[in-house]
Amino acid sequence: MQTTTSGRKFLYEDLHDLLSGMIRGGAFPPGEKLPSIRRLSLQKQMSISTVMKAYMLLEEQGVIESRPQSGFYVRSAADLPEEPARTSGASHPVEVKGDAKVVVDLMKASRIPGIVPLGAASPSPQLFPTRRMRRVLSGVFQRLGDEVNVYDVAPGREEFRKLIAQRAIEKGARLRPDDIIATCGCLEALHLSLRAVSKPGEMVAVENPTYFGILQVLEALGLRAVEIPTDPRTGMDLDAFRKALRTRKLAAAVVMPNFHNPLGSKMPDAHKKELVSLAATRNLPLIEDDIYGDLYYTGPRPRTLKSYDTEGLVILCSSFSKLLSPGLRVGWCAPGRYRNEVERLKMMSTIGTGTIPQLLITEMLRGGGYDRFLRGLRNSFYTQTQKTIAAIGKYFPEGTRVTKPQGGFVLWVELPRGIDSVELARKALQKNISVAPGILFSAKGSFRNFLRISCGQIWTETIDRALLTLGLLARGIA
Amino acid sequence: MQTTTSGRKFLYEDLHDLLSGMIRGGAFPPGEKLPSIRRLSLQKQMSISTVMKAYMLLEEQGVIESRPQSGFYVRSAADLPEEPARTSGASHPVEVKGDAKVVVDLMKASRIPGIVPLGAASPSPQLFPTRRMRRVLSGVFQRLGDEVNVYDVAPGREEFRKLIAQRAIEKGARLRPDDIIATCGCLEALHLSLRAVSKPGEMVAVENPTYFGILQVLEALGLRAVEIPTDPRTGMDLDAFRKALRTRKLAAAVVMPNFHNPLGSKMPDAHKKELVSLAATRNLPLIEDDIYGDLYYTGPRPRTLKSYDTEGLVILCSSFSKLLSPGLRVGWCAPGRYRNEVERLKMMSTIGTGTIPQLLITEMLRGGGYDRFLRGLRNSFYTQTQKTIAAIGKYFPEGTRVTKPQGGFVLWVELPRGIDSVELARKALQKNISVAPGILFSAKGSFRNFLRISCGQIWTETIDRALLTLGLLARGIA
Repeated sequence: MQTTTSGRKFLYEDLHDLLSGMIRGGAFPPGEKLPSIRRLSLQKQMSISTVMKAYMLLEEQGVIESRPQSGFYVRSAADLPEEPARTSGASHPVEVKGDAKVVVDLMKASRIPGIVPLGAASPSPQLFPTRRMRRVLSGVFQRLGDEVNVYDVAPGREEFRKLIAQRAIEKGARLRPDDIIATCGCLEALHLSLRAVSKPGEMVAVENPTYFGILQVLEALGLRAVEIPTDPRTGMDLDAFRKALRTRKLAAAVVMPNFHNPLGSKMPDAHKKELVSLAATRNLPLIEDDIYGDLYYTGPRPRTLKSYDTEGLVILCSSFSKLLSPGLRVGWCAPGRYRNEVERLKMMSTIGTGTIPQLLITEMLRGGGYDRFLRGLRNSFYTQTQKTIAAIGKYFPEGTRVTKPQGGFVLWVELPRGIDSVELARKALQKNISVAPGILFSAKGSFRNFLRISCGQIWTETIDRALLTLGLLARGIA
Repeated sequence: MQTTTSGRKFLYEDLHDLLSGMIRGGAFPPGEKLPSIRRLSLQKQMSISTVMKAYMLLEEQGVIESRPQSGFYVRSAADLPEEPARTSGASHPVEVKGDAKVVVDLMKASRIPGIVPLGAASPSPQLFPTRRMRRVLSGVFQRLGDEVNVYDVAPGREEFRKLIAQRAIEKGARLRPDDIIATCGCLEALHLSLRAVSKPGEMVAVENPTYFGILQVLEALGLRAVEIPTDPRTGMDLDAFRKALRTRKLAAAVVMPNFHNPLGSKMPDAHKKELVSLAATRNLPLIEDDIYGDLYYTGPRPRTLKSYDTEGLVILCSSFSKLLSPGLRVGWCAPGRYRNEVERLKMMSTIGTGTIPQLLITEMLRGGGYDRFLRGLRNSFYTQTQKTIAAIGKYFPEGTRVTKPQGGFVLWVELPRGIDSVELARKALQKNISVAPGILFSAKGSFRNFLRISCGQIWTETIDRALLTLGLLARGIA
């Protein structure tokens, strides 16, 4: 039994203070995993319950957080930047006239050799199980032989759709293999879904901000955007959405309820339920982008809008580009009542999805190793995100705000007013750093003093230095 | 020196008669390769020039044909069906209202286990070099490691585009890697190209008949089709096209000059040149579908429209789905002056093309084995096509006409008037045979008594029996 210097019994409060001091002192940096309760209890010769109480107090204070089946992790320190405010403002429909060149440059920048890629939301290639993929692929070729050389035609390979349907149960949705259509990534799923439910010139509700890919699809299809304000923690503002429903003739809404890009927000279940029921009263198709849904930091797996959908109005879209490899271009959607139309459009635009990539993913999912791998991937993204938040707090000018996402791997950074993030991104590129300026995430080109920073890359000194450089640029020093 | 039974010197005419009799008698069935000139000369103890003269006479008579670097092959027998007539008729623009369900059913039918797939233009999986693909893919993973797990973003992998540009020289076109954009198959290339050059409601010239995928893209984009008559040997009728150019405000023309689907026609070089120059006078974009261009039966590789294009008006589209594996979904286009717009649209619809499939194709093309493999593939398609023509001649009702394609692997079959090929296809499906009814190849639903029969499958007894069954169904007997 350990005692304090004063000789009295070592209480859980003492342990709390000790740990808290160590964390503040940097012995456990943000994102670091703490020793397990059992280990600390053995090490300190204290009861399990004492250690647990200390951890719970730290958790209550927001210093650490627990993640099921993984343990306790240091949260960002207390002197971290605030979160950005809710967005607001009336939403009049606008034609999306994105600055395509900025997007193209951004996507291309991530491929420049030697660049620090904080712009595109691409994970480090090293995060994926390449060796296992190679082995599995070789096995697929051995088992199927020439049968790998067949066209895939929409809706996609049956074994792939079966596995997607099985895994949908954990997302709270009951899907049959026939409900699923394989696509060339999530963006094709979103594209086909929007085409299935809208005509050029019609209005579509989107979150403000929203993923620029969604805005690009709207632009490509000649749709007008009705931007709905958001809260950085809970996502789409339902009051504003309700108002838009009353005042606008919407063709659809595109929503990212789970770990929104760029906000990282997670819509509470009550909101999800309400959103689906609001849509049902108007027969409004809801296109749900769930590409980050499996990348939660603390479980359980958040539910999808689709899991509340009894009318077949929700089109659930996702992909393996952030989960297994961006090099495969395999996504999928569950289009509910729009299934046949989406299938038809898929056939008319790309016929099918790669057979060999689908086979590879099916085999990767089949083995038990996938869930173990995903657990590690989530922890990596969590750690990378926390470290980035801390660095932003340290390096960026006073008044900078940053989101505290609950999953995924992107941060939405609000710089002090007057800082032009397009100019900042341009200067950063000259220093071999790519970032995504905020205007990309708005149909109207708002968010000029915002940045999206991707934490998909494994944390290194280079990234730390890049964030320092960004901070200096934002301060006008570099 | 061999002599005839009458004792006189064995002349090349005698050899001709002997061979001709053997061919008619079935000793050398259609598509079969004849002994080489050298071998026959040794065997018959005749001079090389005597054998060559006999072969040339047979070739003149259309009994056999030569293929460079390969030898002489038996052509379809003399009692083969005639070719279909040129299509004709004034071309008023029509909205494409394809019977999507028929297309969907057709594509799906090719996947039914046990079906004889004469419908979709899919090659036998056994025709592709699966073992080599497996080895090459494993090598790619070994060499690149985690680097296979990166997003591909339009325009596509540089090493892939470099190889496409290098190989374009044999198509007569000078292309740089930067002229190329990788796509998810040829259909995406056609889709993006049409989107880049047209707006909904505009008119696009297409061949009549044309590949149904092109009509589906027109339908998906809300474009109207102006159908231009064709000749089954030379493709698009340039007089009719010239007239359409004068009388209609066309946004583009989609053309398959090389081994047209379904006609198998090859446009003469003089026509290609004229077509490109006609388009140039009107600043009209020409979308060239060259997916079958590498599958010529006799060389040299036919030139592309692109090779005559000095204005950047031709958008050359192709794919590896018929050449290396339909399971990869990797195509490409060279959009000339529309490059940036196509790249932008690609990014907005599928972001990029599979990285791993592109890497695989690049490595397959790099090795010298690819050209050898292609030579064999061409011979397979030639043989399969000739055998199918012969079987149609034998089994189908009198008055049936069939094309004599010069490349590719599809046949366009004209049944006697009054036979409804939609009904025929339905009945065939009940007997586990899929065929493509003619109406799919026309925006107006013409060609009701036509069928497209794919010869992509390796010839077997089963295919022979399936063609017999189709013949009986067409005669109203089965």
